[in-house]
Amino acid sequence: MSINGKEIETKFLEYVKKIGAYNEALALIYWDLRTGAPKKGVNQRTEVIGVLSSELFELSTSEQLESYLTVLSEESIQMELSPITRKTVAEMKKDFDRNKKIPAQEYKEYVMLQSKAESVWEEAKEKADFALFQPYLEKLVEMNKKFIEYWGHKNNKYDVLLDMYEPGMTVAVLDEVFSNVRDKIVPLVHKIAESSHKPSTAFLYQHFSQENQEAFSLEVLKQVGYDFDAGRLDQTVHPFATGINPGDVRITTKYDESDFRVAIFGTIHEVGHALYEQNISKDLIGTPLCSGTSMGIHESQSLFYENFVGRNLSFWKHNYETLKSYTSGQFDQVSVEDFYRAINESKPSLIRIEADELTYPLHIMIRYEIEKGLFDGDLQVKDLPKIWNEKYQSYLGVVPENDGEGVLQDVHWAGGSFGYFPSYALGYMYAAQLKQVMQKDIPEFDDLLEQGQLLPIKEWLNEKIHRYGKMKKPLEILKDVTGEGLNAQYLIDYLYNKYSDVYQLEQ
Amino acid sequence: MSINGKEIETKFLEYVKKIGAYNEALALIYWDLRTGAPKKGVNQRTEVIGVLSSELFELSTSEQLESYLTVLSEESIQMELSPITRKTVAEMKKDFDRNKKIPAQEYKEYVMLQSKAESVWEEAKEKADFALFQPYLEKLVEMNKKFIEYWGHKNNKYDVLLDMYEPGMTVAVLDEVFSNVRDKIVPLVHKIAESSHKPSTAFLYQHFSQENQEAFSLEVLKQVGYDFDAGRLDQTVHPFATGINPGDVRITTKYDESDFRVAIFGTIHEVGHALYEQNISKDLIGTPLCSGTSMGIHESQSLFYENFVGRNLSFWKHNYETLKSYTSGQFDQVSVEDFYRAINESKPSLIRIEADELTYPLHIMIRYEIEKGLFDGDLQVKDLPKIWNEKYQSYLGVVPENDGEGVLQDVHWAGGSFGYFPSYALGYMYAAQLKQVMQKDIPEFDDLLEQGQLLPIKEWLNEKIHRYGKMKKPLEILKDVTGEGLNAQYLIDYLYNKYSDVYQLEQ
Repeated sequence: MSINGKEIETKFLEYVKKIGAYNEALALIYWDLRTGAPKKGVNQRTEVIGVLSSELFELSTSEQLESYLTVLSEESIQMELSPITRKTVAEMKKDFDRNKKIPAQEYKEYVMLQSKAESVWEEAKEKADFALFQPYLEKLVEMNKKFIEYWGHKNNKYDVLLDMYEPGMTVAVLDEVFSNVRDKIVPLVHKIAESSHKPSTAFLYQHFSQENQEAFSLEVLKQVGYDFDAGRLDQTVHPFATGINPGDVRITTKYDESDFRVAIFGTIHEVGHALYEQNISKDLIGTPLCSGTSMGIHESQSLFYENFVGRNLSFWKHNYETLKSYTSGQFDQVSVEDFYRAINESKPSLIRIEADELTYPLHIMIRYEIEKGLFDGDLQVKDLPKIWNEKYQSYLGVVPENDGEGVLQDVHWAGGSFGYFPSYALGYMYAAQLKQVMQKDIPEFDDLLEQGQLLPIKEWLNEKIHRYGKMKKPLEILKDVTGEGLNAQYLIDYLYNKYSDVYQLEQ
Repeated sequence: MSINGKEIETKFLEYVKKIGAYNEALALIYWDLRTGAPKKGVNQRTEVIGVLSSELFELSTSEQLESYLTVLSEESIQMELSPITRKTVAEMKKDFDRNKKIPAQEYKEYVMLQSKAESVWEEAKEKADFALFQPYLEKLVEMNKKFIEYWGHKNNKYDVLLDMYEPGMTVAVLDEVFSNVRDKIVPLVHKIAESSHKPSTAFLYQHFSQENQEAFSLEVLKQVGYDFDAGRLDQTVHPFATGINPGDVRITTKYDESDFRVAIFGTIHEVGHALYEQNISKDLIGTPLCSGTSMGIHESQSLFYENFVGRNLSFWKHNYETLKSYTSGQFDQVSVEDFYRAINESKPSLIRIEADELTYPLHIMIRYEIEKGLFDGDLQVKDLPKIWNEKYQSYLGVVPENDGEGVLQDVHWAGGSFGYFPSYALGYMYAAQLKQVMQKDIPEFDDLLEQGQLLPIKEWLNEKIHRYGKMKKPLEILKDVTGEGLNAQYLIDYLYNKYSDVYQLEQ
């Protein structure tokens, strides 16, 4: 490489590191705000976030950065860059172009709109009053449509939004997989509703002290291979995992003493995210590649652990006695098989975040169809409550009593996050596809669970997925690991097998 | 004010706010590092600290700032500035001038030296090997001498260093008060050593569970008026208080199950600092004035609570039964008076941070005399171990077995902090002076303690000291509250009265 190119590469990487440092400081501030920052300090902390975010925005849109990106994108120089620098340039350029194409004034207006819309949404949800929120949602949709024009689009406009969360994902692909899911899952949900072999679940709701739930959660975290020297467990209202850097990946959970599943499955879900972030290659530290490659792949890791590990009979064959030792005896008369059936109960419900494994994809599909209609069809914001209720009736057989538990239930749209929801369903499908391949590589999967030997599973995921960070795009990972593209059939098969067993259905 | 002046004032205050935001982010990062950040993330966190600190240094030495300070220091504009802006300009200008006078290359070299010296000091202390540390200490002293030349000095060179921690403090003042302390305290220490009325203390060292120590500490924190909505209590190896902003002032403590005094008096000490930071006027948020005015005044608050409240018989008359209720009965046969004598035991010792109330000032005096000798006398670094040991023998009657528990015991010099130690002793003297005046304003002081009514005490300190932040200089506060300057006599009288009582000495 020319000496000049080398010099610019070094300077560029320094610059990128600086951006990384601001992101890391902000990640810590957010973690702190959610885990125990004293409430009287929050206003001033918000000012600090404002200062650091502005600085970050300036760094991400500066002429300095532009000139680095221009030079480093030249073909002659590209060839000589390290693979990490090359990917870093591509990643930064994508963000830079996105940011630059929106006029600064409109961007500012949009940020203010988001913040205002979120607080209006909160009130609207509380009062179950969609009319209150409607003008804000309309404006958010309108501005996003305008942004899509700035950014440019080939086929569907909605593809542009999908690509933000799941690079490479399109309406064409999703239409096919969701129609598959719809055709297969909806009938299964109905069949289960009519089953006469429903699991008993009363024992799930008996008192289980927070202290003991925490102790059990910690044992599970150790078992799956979470590194406590590179993380910690705290308590929050909404559980989350945050990868501040690969040596500092924190998880939180929440405790309900009348339903231990909230903490246990919440923790297992979050540790799936955390194992991803803890095991990204250290070579990527200080670059924007040092993070999960997409929302969907991230969710595939959390759902893999939550469902394929945590809701697996073999897992409980190993852990049930330990769990019992932390309780006051409510499971003493319950066999591990009956326990397994209970924690896999499926019941159509109104609220997405409380949905079970089987019905969850339907909640996502409803949101996907609505978003697609808003951006590519002729769906109007004002009609959303009606459409929402119709779809819930049709797919799940339940109808919200009001918009608070209906169309207003999620914060995503208030924050302007359109195109985000499909990632949740993609995560399910990816997880099922990965499981299929893992089963071939590790045929003793269930035996390992039964022995509490979970490290080979983690190592397989480290090797195939985690270490790459953003070095590979989501569909590239999927292709490299499974040899195919997105395929809903594995999830469908898994759900059929599992729920036929749990509900003793005739196949 | 001219429109231009007004505009610059606004811009300047925005600029200052930005500096405040970086400081706040760094304060949070340091708190996190000390309270539970996963150890594998620390290296990368250090990079983040580096980026934010460099940015902060640039902001504090920029031409932009210089031009604001130049305009706002003009007499015609000064007159029209708000008092807060005026003080802010003075404060920023002082720092700016200090920073600017040192050539950038030397400053960088010094920062690297500090960091290297601290790690060498750690090893040297561990191995009790002064020779290892000596060249670094020599270099640190030499560079500080050079800096003093850059900054300029009137009388004593050491004054320049004192002024960094205690604005306005001088060798002339300290010589007088310390000679007073030496003449009065040393004989008292000797008298006590010969006393035949030594308190029994064996019961202090019986097992006291961490959980119960924490519960009791929390009760004390509530009693003194610590605002938990603007703070939290955590556990660390070295206790500290940090005012991240007035709405977020966190304290930490440490627990020793064989000596509950470590946690209890540590907590009471730190809450003295915290009450100061929690009660600074909200008007000062976002300016460099929003912090305690000096190390000495800060220490006066922590020592006021630790000694004048926490080691007071009346305080324990109220709290002793509660304390007992948290123990396994070790105090059941001990009267509150005997308990009081035990926690006020005085014994010459080698380690400053473990010293009692009476001997502590002597530890400080030794360090003061050595620092003064290094900068204004002909003391050589190589002679410090010998001088250290001679002074310990002469003032305290004890001699370290090795330099690890002698001259190498404190980190301060390794960090280049010369002139810092006297603040600790000043804090004692200030506290005694303040107590004297408070006693006049609140003659029922002891009754309030006995009733557990500590809020009037906090409010008095809020009113007289806390709210001002850095709006008043330390000696200005002292003068405004007590009507006089630094006067060691109050501390001496207090110690004489207290220890004559505890050791039943004839006066």
